[in-house]
Amino acid sequence: MSARDPGLRAQTLWRDGAAEADQLVVEAPLELHLDGQPLAVLMRTPGEDLDLAAGFLVTEGLAEWPDDLHSLGHCTDPNRPNRENVVKVTRAPGAPRPAERGFVATAGCGLCGKRQIEDLFQRAPPLTERLRLDAGVLAALPETLRAAQPRFAASGGLHGAALVTAAGDLVCAREDVGRHNAVDKVLGAEWRADRWPLEGQALVVSSRAGFEILQKALVARVGAVVAVGAASTLAHDLAVQAGLSLYSFVRGAAFNAHQP
Amino acid sequence: MSARDPGLRAQTLWRDGAAEADQLVVEAPLELHLDGQPLAVLMRTPGEDLDLAAGFLVTEGLAEWPDDLHSLGHCTDPNRPNRENVVKVTRAPGAPRPAERGFVATAGCGLCGKRQIEDLFQRAPPLTERLRLDAGVLAALPETLRAAQPRFAASGGLHGAALVTAAGDLVCAREDVGRHNAVDKVLGAEWRADRWPLEGQALVVSSRAGFEILQKALVARVGAVVAVGAASTLAHDLAVQAGLSLYSFVRGAAFNAHQP
Repeated sequence: MSARDPGLRAQTLWRDGAAEADQLVVEAPLELHLDGQPLAVLMRTPGEDLDLAAGFLVTEGLAEWPDDLHSLGHCTDPNRPNRENVVKVTRAPGAPRPAERGFVATAGCGLCGKRQIEDLFQRAPPLTERLRLDAGVLAALPETLRAAQPRFAASGGLHGAALVTAAGDLVCAREDVGRHNAVDKVLGAEWRADRWPLEGQALVVSSRAGFEILQKALVARVGAVVAVGAASTLAHDLAVQAGLSLYSFVRGAAFNAHQP
Repeated sequence: MSARDPGLRAQTLWRDGAAEADQLVVEAPLELHLDGQPLAVLMRTPGEDLDLAAGFLVTEGLAEWPDDLHSLGHCTDPNRPNRENVVKVTRAPGAPRPAERGFVATAGCGLCGKRQIEDLFQRAPPLTERLRLDAGVLAALPETLRAAQPRFAASGGLHGAALVTAAGDLVCAREDVGRHNAVDKVLGAEWRADRWPLEGQALVVSSRAGFEILQKALVARVGAVVAVGAASTLAHDLAVQAGLSLYSFVRGAAFNAHQP
C-alpha cells in the first residue's frame, strides 16, 4: 500500500529495547446517520466507508435494493469537524421502511438462538439450491484471501473478507480492523455496483464464523461461507437450517464441513 | 471440561468425507435488563453470565462499585421461556446514575479518536503510576493464558482473557466466543468479589488490542495490557495518553512495546 493509505499509520514501537519503524492499523469511529437520525457508531478502518455503510444497512435489514437510497455520502458540512468520519444516508421517498427491528419485539419472551434464526428467516428465507465447493477450491481460498490483504501483510492487524466464485476466483476483497466491517465492505461494494444478490458465490473470512457473519451471508444470498477459524453452534445451526454451506478451520487441504 | 459444560456442544462434522466427533463453542444471546428496561443483547458463551453482566455494566460506566447494585441475577419468572438467557440488574436507590452516554452528546460535532479518549478520561482519568512488565514475565504470559483455556483446547473457537500479577501469576481467566465478553467476565468476576480496582495487575488477551479492550482496562485501573495480536492506532494512542503499558504481538521472547 502507499504511504498515504488512510488504513495504516507509521508508528515507532520498541522491540528488544530498540526503537523500530512499524505500521499500525488505523481504528477510528464512523458515525452513520439514516434519514437525519444518528443510527450507529462503527469502529472501523477508514477507507471504503460508503461500502461499509451500505453493507451495514443492507445486512441489518434497513435497505434492500440500491434504489431504496436517495443519497449516500460523507458529510459535507464545512462547519463540522471530522466530517470524514460521518456518513449520511437518506432513503428514497417511496422506499419500503423495514420495521424497526431489535429489542422491543423480543423483550418479554426470552431470546434464544432458535428465535433469532426464525426472525432472520422472515427477511432472508433459506436457500433453495445447495452450493458445494470442491476440496481443491477450498484449499486455495485462504491464500487467495491473504494475497488480497496488503494491509495485513504490513501490520498484522486486520481482518479480511472476500467474495469468490464457485471456482475460487476472486471477485472482491476488503480489510478492516473489525471482522464484521470487512464483510459489510465486501457486500456493500457489490450491492452498490448493482451486483446483487450474490447467488452461487462464496464468502471467505479470515476469522471465525459466528452468527452475525452467517446472517450477513444469508441476506446476501451467497451459497457458502468459508472460515479460516472455528464456527460457533449458532452459526452451525443457521447454516444447516438455511441450506448455506459452511466450511470452518479451512487450512491447507483440511477443513470441517457443517452438514445436517 | 466435563461433557456437561454449557460452553461446548458435541457436534458431528465432516472431515475428508468422513463423519467426525467434534466440539463447537456455544454462542447464545444474553438479554441484559437494567432497572426493568432492556439494555443490550450480548452474543456470548453461556457460563459466568453474572460476571459478564457486571463487567459490562462497570466498563460501560453504568455502575461503579458493587454496592451500587441492589440485585443481579438470572430471570426467575417461571412463565418466561429461555430465562437462562436473561439477566436482570437493579441499581441501589441511592446509587449514582451515570449520565446516559452515547450518541446524542456527540452528534453534531463529529467523532474522532481524540474525542473518544477525552470522553473516557472524564470517568477514568490517566494512571499516575507506570507498570512495566519484565521481558521474562511477558514471554510466559501467552502460555499462562492458553493453559487456562480448556475450552479453546477442545474447540479452537474461544477468546481468552486473564488477569495476572506483575510477576505473571494467574489471578483469574475466562473464555468466551466474544473477545470483549471474555474481558468483561474477568473484570466482572473481580468486581463482584470486591477486588477492585485492579491497580498493579495486568490484563492478558488472546486477541488483538483495540480501543474497547484498552477502555475496559483503564476503567479497571490495570497497569498493563498484554495482547497476543496486533494493536490499533486508537489503542496505541489511548495507552500512551493514559500511562497504561501496552504490549502487542507477544509471542515467545519477542513483543512490541507501545511508548510515547
